[in-house]
Amino acid sequence: MFSLSVNDHVMIAHSLPHEFFGPAQALHGATIAVEVTFTREELDEHRVVLDIGEALALLDEALTPLRYTNLDEHPDFAGRLSTSEAIAEYIGTDLSTSLADRPEIGITVHLRENPRAAVSYTVANRP
Amino acid sequence: MFSLSVNDHVMIAHSLPHEFFGPAQALHGATIAVEVTFTREELDEHRVVLDIGEALALLDEALTPLRYTNLDEHPDFAGRLSTSEAIAEYIGTDLSTSLADRPEIGITVHLRENPRAAVSYTVANRP
Amino acid sequence: MFSLSVNDHVMIAHSLPHEFFGPAQALHGATIAVEVTFTREELDEHRVVLDIGEALALLDEALTPLRYTNLDEHPDFAGRLSTSEAIAEYIGTDLSTSLADRPEIGITVHLRENPRAAVSYTVANRP
Amino acid sequence: MFSLSVNDHVMIAHSLPHEFFGPAQALHGATIAVEVTFTREELDEHRVVLDIGEALALLDEALTPLRYTNLDEHPDFAGRLSTSEAIAEYIGTDLSTSLADRPEIGITVHLRENPRAAVSYTVANRP
Amino acid sequence: MFSLSVNDHVMIAHSLPHEFFGPAQALHGATIAVEVTFTREELDEHRVVLDIGEALALLDEALTPLRYTNLDEHPDFAGRLSTSEAIAEYIGTDLSTSLADRPEIGITVHLRENPRAAVSYTVANRP
Amino acid sequence: MFSLSVNDHVMIAHSLPHEFFGPAQALHGATIAVEVTFTREELDEHRVVLDIGEALALLDEALTPLRYTNLDEHPDFAGRLSTSEAIAEYIGTDLSTSLADRPEIGITVHLRENPRAAVSYTVANRP
Repeated sequence: MFSLSVNDHVMIAHSLPHEFFGPAQALHGATIAVEVTFTREELDEHRVVLDIGEALALLDEALTPLRYTNLDEHPDFAGRLSTSEAIAEYIGTDLSTSLADRPEIGITVHLRENPRAAVSYTVANRP
Repeated sequence: MFSLSVNDHVMIAHSLPHEFFGPAQALHGATIAVEVTFTREELDEHRVVLDIGEALALLDEALTPLRYTNLDEHPDFAGRLSTSEAIAEYIGTDLSTSLADRPEIGITVHLRENPRAAVSYTVANRP
Repeated sequence: MFSLSVNDHVMIAHSLPHEFFGPAQALHGATIAVEVTFTREELDEHRVVLDIGEALALLDEALTPLRYTNLDEHPDFAGRLSTSEAIAEYIGTDLSTSLADRPEIGITVHLRENPRAAVSYTVANRP
Repeated sequence: MFSLSVNDHVMIAHSLPHEFFGPAQALHGATIAVEVTFTREELDEHRVVLDIGEALALLDEALTPLRYTNLDEHPDFAGRLSTSEAIAEYIGTDLSTSLADRPEIGITVHLRENPRAAVSYTVANRP
Repeated sequence: MFSLSVNDHVMIAHSLPHEFFGPAQALHGATIAVEVTFTREELDEHRVVLDIGEALALLDEALTPLRYTNLDEHPDFAGRLSTSEAIAEYIGTDLSTSLADRPEIGITVHLRENPRAAVSYTVANRP
Repeated sequence: MFSLSVNDHVMIAHSLPHEFFGPAQALHGATIAVEVTFTREELDEHRVVLDIGEALALLDEALTPLRYTNLDEHPDFAGRLSTSEAIAEYIGTDLSTSLADRPEIGITVHLRENPRAAVSYTVANRP
């Protein structure tokens, strides 16, 4: 089993309007440091999991709709809880669509939202 | 598959009194940086693995008996080897008890004892 | 010359409404990882720069008004550009007031707003 | 399941002579930060996965043939693409040979080649 | 005093052909993680030290001639010792030229060449 | 102005027997991650601040008397408060003695005792 991980970040505003979230119910924000790990059983003909440049481009594409946005008004999050877990799932789903023609590649999205908390999502229906 | 990771640290003294451990047989100490990862197949109704505040509180509770202690005299370690692996198992077992009513949550405890060495323990009998 | 550094973080929303800031003109947010460094020529009678617990408490006090806020509506930032540099100056000024009775302690506030950019402010009129 | 991770680094030159690699076709180099994770179902009689000193020595042994080399002229890489994935596989295979008498230990090699990209290889035919 | 720091990296090959450098005399390579810190006494009219985008662009410009190169054949290093200190000075001098019209900005270049060693250069004749 | 930084760590036990230190009065321990920064106005004839190998050896020599020890019984700390600041001063003084013949080199010792607190000491009577 091989993996390739690349990273990037986005800076977003959002609120989590449910008493469950305590002070995070208020409008606040986060720098979300994203690391995506692509996995494969065997390397391809160039002895890589994926080209690093392509991996970074795929991640950039997935993050572009989120850059400098207020998720409370974002078409894909408005009216839904934009927890870090939900954002990870959103990014993973987008990457999975981009890699629809390569089902042999597994995808895990890891998000660090602050120095003390991070989440991850491994895309379902992939290895 | 989703995960949430939170972290904290404790500062302990201990010795590893068996020749296997070379210079670490002497009384010394460690800052143990702990990261716990909680995993779940599906998010709960608030779209999270676990509330971050609850996760940090559970970890704090598990670490409190270890803070500023000499493990050589700690009731749970005295007379037993308090290797990092054993400390990870101790913390994981404690967290597993705290989450006895939520068996769907997996638990992995990761301990960094110095810049060049770290250990982990994944609780048995959980996903 | 001695120093003590402690750290914490806040998660804020804000916008930078001037064309100079390009896409950051939109409402977005940031996790701001703050490290404060206190400096002193000589240690005190307990051989420390400052008690770590007191240093963490001073920092917590300075950050509390910023936690989970939208700076665009914060009394100290509304109508003014809340750049990272301005936030660093705000925190440093607050810490300097708290340490008004100890002018021998220098104060530098370091803020990391994302993995690729950080700022700092050293309080004026202190060593 | 338990794990122990230790780390070290090597500084190598190489080229990736295939148009697939764009600018990395030219002779360049990398600091490769290596972290190896050893896994085991149960701890041994000293309550460890492996002695940290032995783990660091095994890693040092595996890295020695790579230190301060040009992989383009290295007997094990000349004429083959020395991608990070291939280097991870090389190191993992070497460690697996060293641990041939302990098949119960799993081995994963993680290489960071720069702040934005990392790869890993989990040795096949081990747990 | 305020500062802004931004970072990037380059991957280069080189040799240090003098017995003083021991095994680093051989052709090898390095990932050089560069952090540049710009300092200013007072913020500008936008309450920043420098625009982050401009800072990243200046750094990218300074690093472009080094990306994926063999310094032994680089016009600015061939026949001279390309130590990390010398590379830091080269980058700092380039940035200083780019900022010739803003002499009020101090410049420090920090290079990490591996997890255990880093160097810095503060440009002379600036604050 | 140039600098070279190298790092290492030690694992020690100690207590801070004065009510000022609260729970740290008890015997506990720490992993102390040490980074030493050597500074010089001009590079030497090999275009370095100091040879990295020599710098690491000097640091190792300074740390050897502390490795795996209980500072409460260490000849240089017994009966005195072994705060992180005091340990930094001890290491800096030792390095300064080792570099007595090179007074043009400045020395700063930076110690991280846990993820949230660090101290530093810059040796007096040096640049």
